[in-house]
Amino acid sequence: MPANFIDWNDTIVAIATPPGVSAIGVIRVSGNKTFEIVNKLLPSKNLLAQPSHTLHVGYLKDDDTVLDEVVVSLFKSPASYTGEDVIEISCHGSPFIQQKILDTLIRCGARLARAGEFTQRAFLKGKLDLVQAEAVADLIASNTRASQNAAIKNMRGGFSHILKNLRERLIRFSALIELELDFSEEDVEFADRKKFTDLLNEIDSTVKNLLQSFVLGNVIKNGVSVAIIGSPNTGKSTLLNTLLNENRAIVSDIAGTTRDTIEEIININGVLFRLIDTAGIREHSNDVIENMGVVKSKEKIQQADIVIFLYDINTTSDEEYFSFFNQLSHQNDKIIAVANKIDEADEKLLRQKKKSFPGNIFISAKKDVGIDVLHKKLFELATGDASLSENIIVTNARHHAALQSVETSIADIREGLKNNISADLLTPDIRRCLYYLGEITGEITNEDQLDYIFSKFCIGK
Amino acid sequence: MPANFIDWNDTIVAIATPPGVSAIGVIRVSGNKTFEIVNKLLPSKNLLAQPSHTLHVGYLKDDDTVLDEVVVSLFKSPASYTGEDVIEISCHGSPFIQQKILDTLIRCGARLARAGEFTQRAFLKGKLDLVQAEAVADLIASNTRASQNAAIKNMRGGFSHILKNLRERLIRFSALIELELDFSEEDVEFADRKKFTDLLNEIDSTVKNLLQSFVLGNVIKNGVSVAIIGSPNTGKSTLLNTLLNENRAIVSDIAGTTRDTIEEIININGVLFRLIDTAGIREHSNDVIENMGVVKSKEKIQQADIVIFLYDINTTSDEEYFSFFNQLSHQNDKIIAVANKIDEADEKLLRQKKKSFPGNIFISAKKDVGIDVLHKKLFELATGDASLSENIIVTNARHHAALQSVETSIADIREGLKNNISADLLTPDIRRCLYYLGEITGEITNEDQLDYIFSKFCIGK
Repeated sequence: MPANFIDWNDTIVAIATPPGVSAIGVIRVSGNKTFEIVNKLLPSKNLLAQPSHTLHVGYLKDDDTVLDEVVVSLFKSPASYTGEDVIEISCHGSPFIQQKILDTLIRCGARLARAGEFTQRAFLKGKLDLVQAEAVADLIASNTRASQNAAIKNMRGGFSHILKNLRERLIRFSALIELELDFSEEDVEFADRKKFTDLLNEIDSTVKNLLQSFVLGNVIKNGVSVAIIGSPNTGKSTLLNTLLNENRAIVSDIAGTTRDTIEEIININGVLFRLIDTAGIREHSNDVIENMGVVKSKEKIQQADIVIFLYDINTTSDEEYFSFFNQLSHQNDKIIAVANKIDEADEKLLRQKKKSFPGNIFISAKKDVGIDVLHKKLFELATGDASLSENIIVTNARHHAALQSVETSIADIREGLKNNISADLLTPDIRRCLYYLGEITGEITNEDQLDYIFSKFCIGK
Repeated sequence: MPANFIDWNDTIVAIATPPGVSAIGVIRVSGNKTFEIVNKLLPSKNLLAQPSHTLHVGYLKDDDTVLDEVVVSLFKSPASYTGEDVIEISCHGSPFIQQKILDTLIRCGARLARAGEFTQRAFLKGKLDLVQAEAVADLIASNTRASQNAAIKNMRGGFSHILKNLRERLIRFSALIELELDFSEEDVEFADRKKFTDLLNEIDSTVKNLLQSFVLGNVIKNGVSVAIIGSPNTGKSTLLNTLLNENRAIVSDIAGTTRDTIEEIININGVLFRLIDTAGIREHSNDVIENMGVVKSKEKIQQADIVIFLYDINTTSDEEYFSFFNQLSHQNDKIIAVANKIDEADEKLLRQKKKSFPGNIFISAKKDVGIDVLHKKLFELATGDASLSENIIVTNARHHAALQSVETSIADIREGLKNNISADLLTPDIRRCLYYLGEITGEITNEDQLDYIFSKFCIGK
């Protein structure tokens, strides 16, 4: 149901905690009639007379039937998550009781909330801009320190503030330039072209930085896929286990993970690396570099963000190495060449190989030697060694697309300025730039897009 | 770890909501240092200066790292669930974030709570008696209106009040009788034997009623198992589907359900009926009455609380009927004989059968005729047609066992009184009676027993 068919004035309700038996369940109510509805069910106290941000204990009753002993949290408009009157009912964590309470609230006039509707209302009431609202969903889905950090930064304002400021300044220039249209016959310039160019440069450089950060943002949000490729008996399975033993990530779900491949996930400095097609490795299958012509291996290599090319330092000749490496490098440009079994190699061989292949990493998966260097290399290749915590990072594909459109329109405006085109020809490009900037933060909204964004939220949020 | 090794003065913490990604997660902290610990993590506000039962929004921080934007609910001792200082932290429903907050609280001095420890502390602080505390767990596990009702009644005091009152009065008599011991040479009677007998009668009748209610209590708590037995083609599978279509219960878990049989569960007036071994029925297997000698069928019939004996009214002769019914009735005393396919029977046959077998239920599973009568009969057999909502019902096996001991000791005291035995011989029986009465409500406690009781709770409750 699109948002424009929704009555934003009614009162919504949803269970906000996960399904399952537990100590506490929370039911959230928001809207004009929140206090009226809940107050009817809690006869021991007049909630209408209580101040905001207070807690009250009582029996929730449906006529004479006690539903549960609950704690209600009161948040009065506008000092609430949605900006509307909100009550959170904390009840015993029985799914049966939660359903009963939900049913009763609906019978008393509330409507079951759609996914994300609480946050959508917060956005519509101006409590959050769109980037902040989207960050709430990212925060809930966050499963590493890095994704949590990025989401919290965006929730707290992050680049919204910067973009809003730039957009406001652009609006002012836009107004001046449009004013020139009214005086077009007099050939005046209200908008200082030099200052305007400075602003365009500032927007362009900000947008370029943000666009650049999306590479990292994507890594943070979706993780990095890694394929371990190597001939039989090079120790792929041992390496897999060594990596997992130290870094296995406990994740409930990762956005964008392909579910049809069997993956193990490790966490290195807050970035998730998905070791793809690990079933093949575990089964000691002959999914080997010699068979690279085979579609499956090829796909695996091309699909991976990073390929670990593992070889046995003791049995692989330089010719074999180069032949394999060259074949691989045609299919993926992020390859880490890793020489395994250095514990079995004699000093001389090791010294020689290190000299011949200075970019390689030398490990013993079995003895856990050199794995820290491999970690560091993986992290570097994934993030470009950027700091994950200090910068503002774009993690959202929608923001990325809009920023690209901003970048294009800025280029068009600059081109126009360079060619000294008239105000009436400049105006459409400026409006386009303003549109895309506004779309990111939600200053310009599109009902369908909003519905799409919020439909990806949890119920109750 | 037994409770006596536990430091009840430390501050405990647990996630109180189910695992999983959701809108909200709640972390509960209780103990002396609750405010001190949480206050350190919420720099934007001095929680120590805030009144009880208030809500505060802020960023939870671990040094400079923002963990989440949270709402904290403050409950100051003694006005809290545990009777101690309690703070509930409502955070975003990311398991990663919840774990981070939990870890941080533990690093700052809280200890991970054991299962049920919040409620155990509430009991030890005198906020709840033992029956009430146990009712909290029952309430969380409740999955029907009847089990919810019974749990709420007990949580609100229920029969605790009655038993405590009786016990206090018995204590007074006990004191008087023990006083007689001091004057034993003077042959005085401080305790009026007539009034004492009246009290014993009152206790006995109360206890007997409670004991009787346990049959119903067990039904409410654990449901009733029902086997559908009948020859092939009598319509077992059709009956199963008809029952399920109207009454299928959505239950996440039922205490005491045997997991190794495949069951379907229906809800009739708030009582759960578990249709056992439905896989056999669904597969149209030849698990039939002719093969009753077969161990499996025998077990199924003996195991069931109620047996539905289904026969085809059109093809079953009176002789066959009696032969089957007699065999069944040797193995289970709760049999409902159900004549199926009355839609295919002619008027005369139906009239005749109804006359011959007045206790039978006549249905058409296919046409959904007579199913309401079967519902009523099932409910009656399960509950003795008792009202599920008005009376106080014992649902807890521990209470039942203690009440049985009370009953025995009352009988001993009465026997003693009848035989006019002396006060010193009466006293041990009275003490025994007081002990078991006190054990139910927790006025007399046993550390190991308490640990056992609370270990069955959820974490966070």
